[in-house]
Amino acid sequence: MVERLAVIGIGLIGSSIARAARARGIAADVVLGDASEAVVRRAADLGLGSRVGTDLAGIVRDADLVIVCVPVGACGAVAELIGPALKPTAIVSDVGSVKGSIVRQMLPHLPDAGRFVPAHPVAGTEHSGPDAGFVELFDNRWCILTPTPDSAPDAVETLRDFWTRVGANVETMTPEHHDLVLAITSHVPHLIAYNIVGTAADLEEVTQSEVIKFSAGGFRDFTRIAASDPTMWRDIFLNNKDAVIEVLGRFSEDLAALQRAIRWGDGDALFDLFTRTRAIRRSIIDVGQDTSAADFGRRALNAATQTGG
Amino acid sequence: MVERLAVIGIGLIGSSIARAARARGIAADVVLGDASEAVVRRAADLGLGSRVGTDLAGIVRDADLVIVCVPVGACGAVAELIGPALKPTAIVSDVGSVKGSIVRQMLPHLPDAGRFVPAHPVAGTEHSGPDAGFVELFDNRWCILTPTPDSAPDAVETLRDFWTRVGANVETMTPEHHDLVLAITSHVPHLIAYNIVGTAADLEEVTQSEVIKFSAGGFRDFTRIAASDPTMWRDIFLNNKDAVIEVLGRFSEDLAALQRAIRWGDGDALFDLFTRTRAIRRSIIDVGQDTSAADFGRRALNAATQTGG
Repeated sequence: MVERLAVIGIGLIGSSIARAARARGIAADVVLGDASEAVVRRAADLGLGSRVGTDLAGIVRDADLVIVCVPVGACGAVAELIGPALKPTAIVSDVGSVKGSIVRQMLPHLPDAGRFVPAHPVAGTEHSGPDAGFVELFDNRWCILTPTPDSAPDAVETLRDFWTRVGANVETMTPEHHDLVLAITSHVPHLIAYNIVGTAADLEEVTQSEVIKFSAGGFRDFTRIAASDPTMWRDIFLNNKDAVIEVLGRFSEDLAALQRAIRWGDGDALFDLFTRTRAIRRSIIDVGQDTSAADFGRRALNAATQTGG
Repeated sequence: MVERLAVIGIGLIGSSIARAARARGIAADVVLGDASEAVVRRAADLGLGSRVGTDLAGIVRDADLVIVCVPVGACGAVAELIGPALKPTAIVSDVGSVKGSIVRQMLPHLPDAGRFVPAHPVAGTEHSGPDAGFVELFDNRWCILTPTPDSAPDAVETLRDFWTRVGANVETMTPEHHDLVLAITSHVPHLIAYNIVGTAADLEEVTQSEVIKFSAGGFRDFTRIAASDPTMWRDIFLNNKDAVIEVLGRFSEDLAALQRAIRWGDGDALFDLFTRTRAIRRSIIDVGQDTSAADFGRRALNAATQTGG
């Protein structure tokens, strides 16, 4: 149980943490800060905490746990702002999708390296902003803690306990390994989704209206991911450059081999790959990280929409 | 209204057509054929038609409309089998995801080129087999008719009417244009989904269990598509080679440019693309080709699963 939780950055993730912390009684008090006046007003209207403001140093002053939920590229500036105002015992964490760069950005501005425990809840949707958050966002998702060599064990334990109560499963690894794991499970998938949607928009032989009309053939799945927050994702790619370029290199190599198999009519190579990938889908469903409902369950949703007019 | 509809190939698409034709009273009688004894038995158990069998020529003998729903690579052989048994007035169509190759495969074996109208309903899920079908699969999806220069206008009209009653919107284009449109909206998206899942499976530095655990970061969306039927998709790539390789070339060029932007830290280029792609997602939702619910509405589904134990 945390006495006072301060959430800095009130987007999808920050507002979901605040909602979960209050709904599940994990923090006695929740306060929130954001650089945007409009976001702060909206968060106040939504009643996300007892206090909401743009004065980030003022917001964190009495907090026992501070979670920074801003785009990766803004973490250094936020640490610089809040560092001098922190209680000596306050634990500082974050939710960034990149960890090595965040450690390098934030650590120099924090008063006590022992109280800093970087973290990354692997959850989200394509929607952004304070309205997009919800209590259950982290349920049965993984939160990865990436303590630095200086992180104090009790601080790591407190954060692990916090995320478990929020609803997540907790795993620990180094920042470097995290950045490689996420490059393949999240960053490169987003990059190729953005890329295919861009390629489709630029084809001269196929109109945009055709791309949109016939998107149910597979394309529409990519557009969901490619609708994610542009600032957040720009920062991720700029801050996880090495791992992303490394994994992208593998992807392009494999794609070239697949293209060669198509050109030469090597049906067995295609069939083998397409069978192997099916098994991975089954494992993801087996461990509860996705639904087995066809089309992610869109069918029921469509039916409901149609019935409702 | 069709007197007797024969569906050849009882998978996701064939069984959905049969279900819709009966449920919505579009055909007075529905008969089905499949080369597999097991599939025929299952279709009989499911009560999908008045007659089901492996003797494809026998099944089509009295049919007024024959729809071939087998993998693209098997269409020629099926046409050869059923050609001699067709009623002179019977309209023959198909549902293949590739059209140029199907015309080349089937036309030589059909008694009357005027009665042949190739078609492609752009709908499906990652599940396969007779059990995977459902009545509403084609509701508000597009069915593309690709008549050949020989197709008789009345045959095209009958088929248009049939698909409209099934629940689809109908569009007409040439087989060649179809194959290019589908290369970008369906075939290349499937190829890169299969490819990224393969790349992830082969990385030495990241374990398969990590890929599966942390798949909610984006990767899991790709695994749905990469769980589609391997035979069907092998045939699609082998039979739409030119358009797929052309679009893949564009995709790879664009990806190289994006990789360069990351390497050189060109945040504006990334931000611009990521903003442009968001607009396409909105259009797809606006025209009713996808749901606006976050994560395709998985959230409600997860909650239901968790409540249900």
